[in-house]
Amino acid sequence: MASGKELCEGVEWRIRVVDGSSEVLVPPTGLARKVWLRTKGLISGLGMKVRMFLKQAWDMGANDPRKVIHCIKVGLALTIVSLVYFMRPLYDGVGGNAMWAIMTVVVVFEPTVGATLYKCLNRVCATCLAGFLAVGVHWIASQSGDRFEPFVVGASIFILGYRVDKLFDLAHQRISTIIIGTSLCILVIMLVCPIWSGQELHSLTVRNMDKLSDSLDGCVRLYFTNSNGEDDQKLQGYKCVLSSKASEESMANFARWEPSHGRFNFRHPWKQYLKIGASMRSCAYCIEALNSCINSENQAAESIKKHLSTSCLKVSSSSSSAIKELAESVKKMNKSPTIDLLVEEMNSALEELHNDLKSLSHLLNPSTTAENQISATGLVPFMEIIPVVTLASILIEISVRIEALVGSVEELVKESEMKDKIVAKEEKPEEP
Amino acid sequence: MASGKELCEGVEWRIRVVDGSSEVLVPPTGLARKVWLRTKGLISGLGMKVRMFLKQAWDMGANDPRKVIHCIKVGLALTIVSLVYFMRPLYDGVGGNAMWAIMTVVVVFEPTVGATLYKCLNRVCATCLAGFLAVGVHWIASQSGDRFEPFVVGASIFILGYRVDKLFDLAHQRISTIIIGTSLCILVIMLVCPIWSGQELHSLTVRNMDKLSDSLDGCVRLYFTNSNGEDDQKLQGYKCVLSSKASEESMANFARWEPSHGRFNFRHPWKQYLKIGASMRSCAYCIEALNSCINSENQAAESIKKHLSTSCLKVSSSSSSAIKELAESVKKMNKSPTIDLLVEEMNSALEELHNDLKSLSHLLNPSTTAENQISATGLVPFMEIIPVVTLASILIEISVRIEALVGSVEELVKESEMKDKIVAKEEKPEEP
Repeated sequence: MASGKELCEGVEWRIRVVDGSSEVLVPPTGLARKVWLRTKGLISGLGMKVRMFLKQAWDMGANDPRKVIHCIKVGLALTIVSLVYFMRPLYDGVGGNAMWAIMTVVVVFEPTVGATLYKCLNRVCATCLAGFLAVGVHWIASQSGDRFEPFVVGASIFILGYRVDKLFDLAHQRISTIIIGTSLCILVIMLVCPIWSGQELHSLTVRNMDKLSDSLDGCVRLYFTNSNGEDDQKLQGYKCVLSSKASEESMANFARWEPSHGRFNFRHPWKQYLKIGASMRSCAYCIEALNSCINSENQAAESIKKHLSTSCLKVSSSSSSAIKELAESVKKMNKSPTIDLLVEEMNSALEELHNDLKSLSHLLNPSTTAENQISATGLVPFMEIIPVVTLASILIEISVRIEALVGSVEELVKESEMKDKIVAKEEKPEEP
Repeated sequence: MASGKELCEGVEWRIRVVDGSSEVLVPPTGLARKVWLRTKGLISGLGMKVRMFLKQAWDMGANDPRKVIHCIKVGLALTIVSLVYFMRPLYDGVGGNAMWAIMTVVVVFEPTVGATLYKCLNRVCATCLAGFLAVGVHWIASQSGDRFEPFVVGASIFILGYRVDKLFDLAHQRISTIIIGTSLCILVIMLVCPIWSGQELHSLTVRNMDKLSDSLDGCVRLYFTNSNGEDDQKLQGYKCVLSSKASEESMANFARWEPSHGRFNFRHPWKQYLKIGASMRSCAYCIEALNSCINSENQAAESIKKHLSTSCLKVSSSSSSAIKELAESVKKMNKSPTIDLLVEEMNSALEELHNDLKSLSHLLNPSTTAENQISATGLVPFMEIIPVVTLASILIEISVRIEALVGSVEELVKESEMKDKIVAKEEKPEEP
């Protein structure tokens, strides 16, 4: 500490003056100097933090530009609603309650169309209900005669919390402000770069399927070929599938409120996406178990690995291309012409794997204690078979679950085509 | 239809009059009658719906009384804050802006203490920031001379959306109302049957551990003993563990804001609960794979099942009692004295399972095509071994993951004891 202080005091503070020469700054002594140093540290620390914050904000915006768009949209909606303050007729029309329109925008504006519509409906319904309640209480109070009116009004104020004489005016103004706020929100959210919950859910599902397929194929390939070239991020992709349940549910919930957009009609079978998500998760659980086999301490015998490698790789590659095809099918929203072929291919690979497993017993050393004979006979002790066998049987289970996934995707496509037909029929009579 | 109508017309409508006799109601004919029937159906349908709704509400309240308590608390807070309307000095003190206090209560009141505190802090900070910004703009406007003042004020109104002359008064009133609202919320939420996020997270973790232990033990027992007496709900308990990630994260996030309550100090290591949750989920993934083995179509040979049954049951029961003990340890927040013993027991059961697996090769039929010899020799084809072997190796993997769980629980207990000591030290000097 002491030597540091001396060192510090041995340093000259120089400042470069505009003409190129430099002046020696005489260090202020004692308390003033300490305060100066402390303040300087504080300011530079604060500057650092602000810079870090700005950098983080920039990164966030660069990673997900939709967040920036959302900010701009909120700003736009607030700016437009603030105009109500400036236009005298509008401002007077709502009795100076323009602030409620702003409050409405602040409360109901959400990143996606579905969520905003849902909140708007909620707010309008709740306001109307509260308005009816208030009018009802008012009516009861006015009917109950001079003697009871104060009591009824007093009790209702205690319950409802309002203290207004011109009730109908208030109700009218409040409803107008809320209608101004909500309709503005709906316009801005639907016209300026709209982000649809349904579209989001759709692309999340497609993305997750691709990830699932990549990590399934990658894991099995990593195990059998020992290639280190596999991208670790690709291998871990199935974890996204595991953790996207909550977001899928909320998106499906909001998507129901959205009008038809893009290729999605009003009553698009959003619930079916949840079923597909559940099927994908059930595959992902198995991939997690597969991963644990791969990282297990019990290493399998190389000869066994070699024996099963061809068929296992075939199963994994055919199942992963089946999942890829399903992703494509969901993306284009039509039944894939090749999916049946791919499932067949997967099943024949499974058959091959079954046969390979059956013939495994030839390689097996029946004696338990003959571990030192291995190299001589080429036979393998039972324990060294277990990891590969476990892997193979999990792989078989995965392909069973993929067939369930195929089923749920086909159901989605069928339902959506049915809805499309219904909508087309409903729309036709209106056309000339 | 026709006969039904006749029947209906054959029935007399009677009404019981007060004196005990009954009068025949002559059915109204034609349109009036139809309208009457329609209306009656509508009303009874509506009554049914209202009854259903009330029943649902009652059931919800009975299943989770805390929801009812939350409703009562919101009502209480709103009632108290409404009193501001009645007390003339208070009402005038905030310039008739008492509504903002009510708005604050509506906006910040959440079911748990942590969430409410978090929102309160958010609201107060945001209001203060906005206030400073407004005052800053005002100052700039007043400093910029007569010529520029209107422009600055105009621009700032356009950005900030306020149209007030007495800025300082407004800021003062707004901040008072918000302080009234938030402090009231904090008082009500902390004094009336408080629900702490931390406590919730703690009991969720304990509950999930119990569920995990039950379903692990139940699944293995179901497989080996074929007992149908297992409770299906208990077997599916691990699914709760799989789906509680999102709620754990939000609770841990809110728990950080809570002051010390019950046995939890202010800086209780809440993040460690998330690690425990992740460890539990990794066990639950394996139980899911285990379940798929149990429900698999490939049934295992009974003799193999019998051979491995004792050791598998031992492993599952010892691991499930280890998890139970961990749950107890988290519950009491101290290191369990028996956990090391239980882990040792689990490891010795694993050793036994390893030996049983090794000796399995004796029971194996080396020939692939000798399926018809089975009954004669008592040997089993390789394919019928696979399901049990897979189950056993998943069981081994589960016990590896349980050891990780033991580690994270011990870390939690250690960290919490450390924090306790620090708090005790900090508090001691204050005591006489």
